[in-house]
Amino acid sequence: MQPVAIYHKHFTAYLEENIQSREPRGLYDPILYILNLGGKRIRPILTLLTAEIFGKNYQEALPAALAIEVFHNFSLVHDDIMDDAPLRRGKETVHEKWNLNTGILSGDAMLILAYQYFEKYNPETFQALAKLFSKTALAVCEGQQWDVDFEVRDDVTINEYLKMIEYKTAVLVAAAMKMGAIIAQTSKENCQKIYDFGLNLGIAFQLQDDYLDAFGNPETFGKQVGGDIIENKKTYLYLKALELASAEEKNSLLDLYSIQPNDNSEKVASVKEIFIQTKSSKLTQEAIALFTEKAFTVLETLEIGDAQKSVLRKFGESLMKRDV
Amino acid sequence: MQPVAIYHKHFTAYLEENIQSREPRGLYDPILYILNLGGKRIRPILTLLTAEIFGKNYQEALPAALAIEVFHNFSLVHDDIMDDAPLRRGKETVHEKWNLNTGILSGDAMLILAYQYFEKYNPETFQALAKLFSKTALAVCEGQQWDVDFEVRDDVTINEYLKMIEYKTAVLVAAAMKMGAIIAQTSKENCQKIYDFGLNLGIAFQLQDDYLDAFGNPETFGKQVGGDIIENKKTYLYLKALELASAEEKNSLLDLYSIQPNDNSEKVASVKEIFIQTKSSKLTQEAIALFTEKAFTVLETLEIGDAQKSVLRKFGESLMKRDV
Repeated sequence: MQPVAIYHKHFTAYLEENIQSREPRGLYDPILYILNLGGKRIRPILTLLTAEIFGKNYQEALPAALAIEVFHNFSLVHDDIMDDAPLRRGKETVHEKWNLNTGILSGDAMLILAYQYFEKYNPETFQALAKLFSKTALAVCEGQQWDVDFEVRDDVTINEYLKMIEYKTAVLVAAAMKMGAIIAQTSKENCQKIYDFGLNLGIAFQLQDDYLDAFGNPETFGKQVGGDIIENKKTYLYLKALELASAEEKNSLLDLYSIQPNDNSEKVASVKEIFIQTKSSKLTQEAIALFTEKAFTVLETLEIGDAQKSVLRKFGESLMKRDV
Repeated sequence: MQPVAIYHKHFTAYLEENIQSREPRGLYDPILYILNLGGKRIRPILTLLTAEIFGKNYQEALPAALAIEVFHNFSLVHDDIMDDAPLRRGKETVHEKWNLNTGILSGDAMLILAYQYFEKYNPETFQALAKLFSKTALAVCEGQQWDVDFEVRDDVTINEYLKMIEYKTAVLVAAAMKMGAIIAQTSKENCQKIYDFGLNLGIAFQLQDDYLDAFGNPETFGKQVGGDIIENKKTYLYLKALELASAEEKNSLLDLYSIQPNDNSEKVASVKEIFIQTKSSKLTQEAIALFTEKAFTVLETLEIGDAQKSVLRKFGESLMKRDV
């Protein structure tokens, strides 16, 4: 196993080698553009790392890692259309830089390209990877649909919210790791366990995203602090606060989530105050700790060496200790 | 082998059994809707028919036939967004009945579902089908991109146009047939030949679509006769006319293709007159005959019985003799 930065370097080199524009440029240039905007490449790195954890050289896992990253970027391109987002990683989104039709069509092509990278594997591995991939990709679509549905519903439960982030975010992290395990041809038990590890870590990661969006350090947090509150997003923090709020607090919160003032600073401060008063902020931190702990508990039962466990634990901790 | 109507019936029953809505309904209801709008089901029928031509029971080919039909409908849903089309088969398009986001996301899910139907096959067949499918799906995206590009170009050649319709339309017909051949485990030669048969027939079919759009019988043609002319579409008829036109005819045609009058009847009549005068209409018919003949020539070299050849020939003739 190698330091994460090294996997990042290997993956980027492989991506650059394999993602090149070709005719028709109107279809492939946007693909090159979005994939070269950078990003942390967490998911493909997890695929490479997991393959090595189970004793296979990371190079064997490069095509699957690329499939995961191309799929992730496909979902960003289509989600950005749906969210009408002008920026992605500080640059214009594909549909802004080109147009709606390009966003749709180049996105479609990326989804197909992702499947093509699995063709590098033998038929059994190909089928195992493609099956896992299809199941995961469909879950991501379902998660996105739940997310859309929740916007207009006022009776979303905490459990429904957890299911939504599991589908929309966590399953892809879990699948990225399981693909590494499949390629390494480890046992069915290890495959299932590394999936569960990734799933719980993925949920913890998304909950932390929610938490940091409100309570992150404004000086190091990449996005506008309070963005979810400004957009009236029904996050874990919000749903938990509603659940625990007194009648008065509940009215205030519902009221604050119904307004869209020009200057949001007072709204953000008031909502955060309710998150703290209802203990929602504290309970969200506890939920993050719980899912992280679940992940680490599964980790202990994996049939791998202590050095390998330690690498996975450190990677998990580094993800969860961020304040950005 | 059975009459086409029987394959249609079997396929429809299989589709109804396998395409059911589920939660989240916002994602799956539109899929059910578009797939139940009907249509001729030419592509999946070709998959079933081809499997039987090569000696396999059509039932074995049902999952692949469904994949082809779901993919075809995925492409309709996304294309209808790109073309801003309000109607499909006389009913509201998905993005009209629901909204843009639903059109994008339900379309994405259909593309993934198509891959999932191949999971019914063993790893070798799965990989062969999925590889052919990915290659075909990507070509369809490329064809769609060329089509979009051609709208704003004024130097499109006949060869480029033929390539575009090959990618956008014909490869899917060809792949539908080759999948039947793959499932029947016939020889590599037969697989390639049936693909070429489908490809040439698909090109002929699309050229005939172009021809009928201008010269079809208004009483039996489903769409508005002259629709392509009204939309200034650079079809084979148009490109061939430009190539053969006198300076005067060329100016008239370019002029007519630059206007969008409220009443189009005079424009349509004038353009059709140029198509006839330049002999473009006649040469388009000859091109249709040429590609049909190419298909039938390949057909003769297939290693199948005369009865089987006759079925394919009849199916091809029935497609090409339509005036609707």
